[in-house]
Amino acid sequence: MIVTGPRTRVTIYDVAAAAGVSTATASKALNETGRVSKETRARIRKAASDLGFRPNSLARSLTRKRSFTVGLLTDDTYGRFTLPVMAGISEGLIDHGVSVFLCAIEDNPELAGTHVDAMLDKQIDGIIATGKRVDRTLPVDLTHLPVPVVYALTAGPADAVTLVPDDMQGTRDAVGHLVGQGRSRIVHITGPTSFRVVEERATAFTEAMQAAGLPVQTSAVMPGSWSERWGHEAVEALWSSSDRPDGIFCGNDQIARGVIDALRERRVDVPQDVSVVGFDNWEIVAEQTRPPLTTIDMNLKELGRQAGQALVRLVNGETVETGLWRLPCTLVVRGSS
Amino acid sequence: MIVTGPRTRVTIYDVAAAAGVSTATASKALNETGRVSKETRARIRKAASDLGFRPNSLARSLTRKRSFTVGLLTDDTYGRFTLPVMAGISEGLIDHGVSVFLCAIEDNPELAGTHVDAMLDKQIDGIIATGKRVDRTLPVDLTHLPVPVVYALTAGPADAVTLVPDDMQGTRDAVGHLVGQGRSRIVHITGPTSFRVVEERATAFTEAMQAAGLPVQTSAVMPGSWSERWGHEAVEALWSSSDRPDGIFCGNDQIARGVIDALRERRVDVPQDVSVVGFDNWEIVAEQTRPPLTTIDMNLKELGRQAGQALVRLVNGETVETGLWRLPCTLVVRGSS
Repeated sequence: MIVTGPRTRVTIYDVAAAAGVSTATASKALNETGRVSKETRARIRKAASDLGFRPNSLARSLTRKRSFTVGLLTDDTYGRFTLPVMAGISEGLIDHGVSVFLCAIEDNPELAGTHVDAMLDKQIDGIIATGKRVDRTLPVDLTHLPVPVVYALTAGPADAVTLVPDDMQGTRDAVGHLVGQGRSRIVHITGPTSFRVVEERATAFTEAMQAAGLPVQTSAVMPGSWSERWGHEAVEALWSSSDRPDGIFCGNDQIARGVIDALRERRVDVPQDVSVVGFDNWEIVAEQTRPPLTTIDMNLKELGRQAGQALVRLVNGETVETGLWRLPCTLVVRGSS
Repeated sequence: MIVTGPRTRVTIYDVAAAAGVSTATASKALNETGRVSKETRARIRKAASDLGFRPNSLARSLTRKRSFTVGLLTDDTYGRFTLPVMAGISEGLIDHGVSVFLCAIEDNPELAGTHVDAMLDKQIDGIIATGKRVDRTLPVDLTHLPVPVVYALTAGPADAVTLVPDDMQGTRDAVGHLVGQGRSRIVHITGPTSFRVVEERATAFTEAMQAAGLPVQTSAVMPGSWSERWGHEAVEALWSSSDRPDGIFCGNDQIARGVIDALRERRVDVPQDVSVVGFDNWEIVAEQTRPPLTTIDMNLKELGRQAGQALVRLVNGETVETGLWRLPCTLVVRGSS
């Protein structure tokens, strides 16, 4: 079968003609402004509904309650961090009837600008900029837009609201948990030092160890890559020495998965001989490791919820405290510790 | 620091006042309709630019080239299938300057309706409905919208364009590859039979085996769940018998990962003793198995690209063939076969 598209958009003229009234009357009835008899209003409403008429959003927003829409910009093409943030924004704003439109921008600044323009053209009420790294800005300047912008999991200007997980507190909780399990020879296998979170977590790790009265060798922090392979390699390096750890805190869950697999292959029992803690609580990884992984949850949904609510307050003209909001992480205990 | 928001939206009145002209002249200059002197036009443009003025999108679309926007609706909250589709739509429509706005809908039909309404209110040009199952419809009726709708990876009505991967061809390629490697005792470890793709792949598997002149026992198709755990359990069941396979075709990459890990633990060499093929080419899994996984790629990006182009043709009033479009899958050979 062959079909042609699109059906032409229905206008107020069509509605008025179908209801046998002037366009002014049709408009008044649909916008609930001015006087229209109950019967006429009902007839116009029915005509609008039958025809599938949708009023122009701007016209509607000027005359009555409008559809509120948040634009979510991201450079996280896997959506691993962005989708939980998006779910949190939606959940937090459900009572406001807010919809969230996500637009993925590439590294190309010109293209990114095109997408931002499209959001503004579509009269989006505010924008949440999000990404995969708290130490990188998106490839587009959002500082002079006619709508408010909130930043989450990406770098924002000093005079904006920027929400990030409290990596240092999460790290302290991870170390505290391992120490609480009686572990004392703890190492930290983590990602590349070019990431600011790697530096922050390494610093927090060292401080937490010292605070617990435990010795920390400089070799206890092992930067590498965010991969299972690095988990395997790090275990190989550690187990080729006689000075082996009894606790391992990993920079993400993929590293932790590599570590746990590598330990099983060496017949090292987790958690009996070595406790392992990850970071991210990426459930598709954390729940499938054997044993399931104890890890730090960055509470990205809650972060999205708060970002959405901050944005709505800005859109409504309320005051919001700007600067960096560090939101708490949570330890999720499973079988690996 | 405390800031208040939002900055009030700049209107044509502000631009006209700043440029010292009437609103009619400002409108003419910005919309490039009617006669305005070159100098006046330049002054108005500068005022608009300085003030950050953005014309109403509908007004613009009526008078000149507008920003074209595709709404992408999904119920795939992990985005595993939707994000590649989204990337494909974007890439395929870059030359058209099209932006894609993704809106995640829940199982709640009322909420889903709110999001669809928001998209229509924002004058989105067309909608692509997508999901995580080709045998389920989204929880909202999209058959009477004033914009064209294309379906991808979700069930659509018979008179619409619906794009799905050709699971049967993908299955034939997987079996053909295993047979080509000299495998003859091949089993198919797959997901729950409530999924139509599970049925289709099982049928195609059996037919491909028969076509290759190989015996197929009914027990050769092992439905279960889409998890690593099921991969482990299935290997345990198979290896507790003496009739062991030399080729395993898995219904997804997570099952395949469980299978490969379970075989390693039994010291069964992959691919020497057993060849393993997955389905999905979910790179974060397929590239991290040891050895890396041979698998079937559903080419979701290409599927998104074609969905986007079909939608643009519909929006432009061109003819498009409706019905089910089955797009080819591709075998990606890595170390496991």
